[in-house]
Amino acid sequence: MEYYISNKMRNMKPSAVREIFKYAADPQVISLSAGTPAVEALPVEAIGQIMNEIRDHDLHSALLYSVSEGHPPLREALKKYLREEHNSFSDNDDLLIVSGAQQCMDLTAKVLCDEGDTVLCEDPSFVGNLNCIRSYGVNLVGIPMEEDGIDLNRLEQALQEQPRVRFIYLIPNFQNPTGKTMSLEKRKGCYQLAKKYGVVIFEDDPYGDLRFAGEALPSIKSMDTEGLVIYARTFSKILSAGIRVGYMALPQGLFNKFVVAKQCADVHTGMLSQLLCYRFLTEYNLREHIQTIGQIYRRKCQVMLDALGQIPSGKLEFTRPQGGLFVWCTLPHVADSSEFCLRLIREHKVAVVPGNAFLAREGGCSPSFRMTFGAPTDQQIVKAVEIIGKAL
Amino acid sequence: MEYYISNKMRNMKPSAVREIFKYAADPQVISLSAGTPAVEALPVEAIGQIMNEIRDHDLHSALLYSVSEGHPPLREALKKYLREEHNSFSDNDDLLIVSGAQQCMDLTAKVLCDEGDTVLCEDPSFVGNLNCIRSYGVNLVGIPMEEDGIDLNRLEQALQEQPRVRFIYLIPNFQNPTGKTMSLEKRKGCYQLAKKYGVVIFEDDPYGDLRFAGEALPSIKSMDTEGLVIYARTFSKILSAGIRVGYMALPQGLFNKFVVAKQCADVHTGMLSQLLCYRFLTEYNLREHIQTIGQIYRRKCQVMLDALGQIPSGKLEFTRPQGGLFVWCTLPHVADSSEFCLRLIREHKVAVVPGNAFLAREGGCSPSFRMTFGAPTDQQIVKAVEIIGKAL
Repeated sequence: MEYYISNKMRNMKPSAVREIFKYAADPQVISLSAGTPAVEALPVEAIGQIMNEIRDHDLHSALLYSVSEGHPPLREALKKYLREEHNSFSDNDDLLIVSGAQQCMDLTAKVLCDEGDTVLCEDPSFVGNLNCIRSYGVNLVGIPMEEDGIDLNRLEQALQEQPRVRFIYLIPNFQNPTGKTMSLEKRKGCYQLAKKYGVVIFEDDPYGDLRFAGEALPSIKSMDTEGLVIYARTFSKILSAGIRVGYMALPQGLFNKFVVAKQCADVHTGMLSQLLCYRFLTEYNLREHIQTIGQIYRRKCQVMLDALGQIPSGKLEFTRPQGGLFVWCTLPHVADSSEFCLRLIREHKVAVVPGNAFLAREGGCSPSFRMTFGAPTDQQIVKAVEIIGKAL
Repeated sequence: MEYYISNKMRNMKPSAVREIFKYAADPQVISLSAGTPAVEALPVEAIGQIMNEIRDHDLHSALLYSVSEGHPPLREALKKYLREEHNSFSDNDDLLIVSGAQQCMDLTAKVLCDEGDTVLCEDPSFVGNLNCIRSYGVNLVGIPMEEDGIDLNRLEQALQEQPRVRFIYLIPNFQNPTGKTMSLEKRKGCYQLAKKYGVVIFEDDPYGDLRFAGEALPSIKSMDTEGLVIYARTFSKILSAGIRVGYMALPQGLFNKFVVAKQCADVHTGMLSQLLCYRFLTEYNLREHIQTIGQIYRRKCQVMLDALGQIPSGKLEFTRPQGGLFVWCTLPHVADSSEFCLRLIREHKVAVVPGNAFLAREGGCSPSFRMTFGAPTDQQIVKAVEIIGKAL
């Protein structure tokens, strides 16, 4: 049987990161590849307790169908949380619960884009969402990253030149893969450009709660007086990635279409997972938990940066993130890191993700690679960086 | 802000059933509308026990990222289950875990169809999946239902006449909304037509385990020697709808594309839900549970049919399902049941779903309406049918 595959899906390949994730399952491999949270940052005790509470008090709710918008008490709790803790929810917004932050992008690309339309993104950017956008037959146009975030001149140029730009995809906090944080000036600049050209911003903020250095900066959503910003967040990095709960603050004018898209996608997000998030958000001390895990990631990041500091200067450049899970390394005088990364995993059993996986243009070259300090132990981080130093 | 909405989503409206579901949340309303399983059919004791086991033994697995294909032990258990209990999994197939059966259709429509392509479906059919297909800009062509399933002559005619037919959507067991079961002869006929015209069949079987009368019939998937059938199933009707776990047996030649689509959609299905299904499937007596809930639905269906039998003949026709959750009622000498259904909920506080919600052609008329005996109590069923009888 010769199957017909849709135009939009015909050339889609699995995400390089997800594939490396499988490869890294080999227990001999030290994986600095997948953006998995630290096991020690999981609030297992609280979750065990909450599971008991759900079992004893909410089991019927957990097991029966619910509404597509999301469990109403969780929606209300998240509106309050976004408003009070992040100043990122206004009376012009509504809130949708989704099955992990990836679904925020899936629904956005489906609702806003026709095939052949254009999305502008930071270059490099998060490959999972880039693939999601590609899977709707949408063209990605990458805008280079500077030290303090996206190049605003190039962004404006693209807004002028590219036809049918449907949204701008940004990760202002501790960007994936670069670990860079967008400056306040650039956040304002992005919002002004979105307003000037009447284009929506998709602000992806999975790591926003994982700041361990520097001053917190306002989200672009907090500046949104015109209903231009879709703000995507997740429980993956603070509570659990495996339960797949994300949420999005959406301008009211877009909300109903997103609810229909959500209905069509998977009816509603799993209730057991939603109830877990609800109880964690309302009955446990989230601020304290965020401080605790911030300390864990600060230490692990420092372990990685100290180890990288041992590599003779000139052999490797790297970013110094203020939060999140990633350090971005660049090989000087090298056009493409792929061969080095392949050698690392094959010969040295260390998995990192080659930079070309994150480019807007598939098949491009990158001298960089991404490492995470989230999941590996301190010892693994030190050993892996030592191995990398020797392999250079 | 004037938002651009994609062509495929611009005219999408919320599912009538999901909307009525909200309306039916009014405690004064007796709802025979949503296809929610009976509360008394939920294996709450087993689930409570399994939650304890996950808490004590699998919590890390439940909380961390997993692979897009689904939890490997659950995939293996489901392959075995489909092979041994349903003869519906061959060496030419692979198995994908999804976030509820609705996602089976979401991935299928995305992978197989371009905008403007055609899908053939039973008419009437399950509105959730019809909306999902529509949300990809795909044309639905409805094929009339006969007593023993889809009209094969009209199906062949459509296969000859319609351009770019990408798949045929069928629900052979206790069809939603009609409650009808496709005969063995027609199952064979559908497969032969799919083979003759080289078109994929999407066989939706959410109710297959809920047979309470008549002889079990082989699935179309069980006849699939050519890799033509996508077979969609779910835990929603036997374990829990709220946890959102479905699965699909897919021809090997399609599997990889579906995995990529799944990655793009939501990375993977929630692990807490998957582990719950795994332990239920492997450690509990599923056959016995299916027999137990079959008895519940047999009784409740009989209560509904007995009550309907009290309505003077000639006022209402209705189907006698061999399983599933639905009875399909038809008003003789009436072109459109909508007004009657609206009057029922407004004046009599009884919620049923008007037949036009299930038509392939939006805006069409149907003299029928759908009632479920799944969620309401025996008393509610009797009372609601009495009210309907008086309202006629």
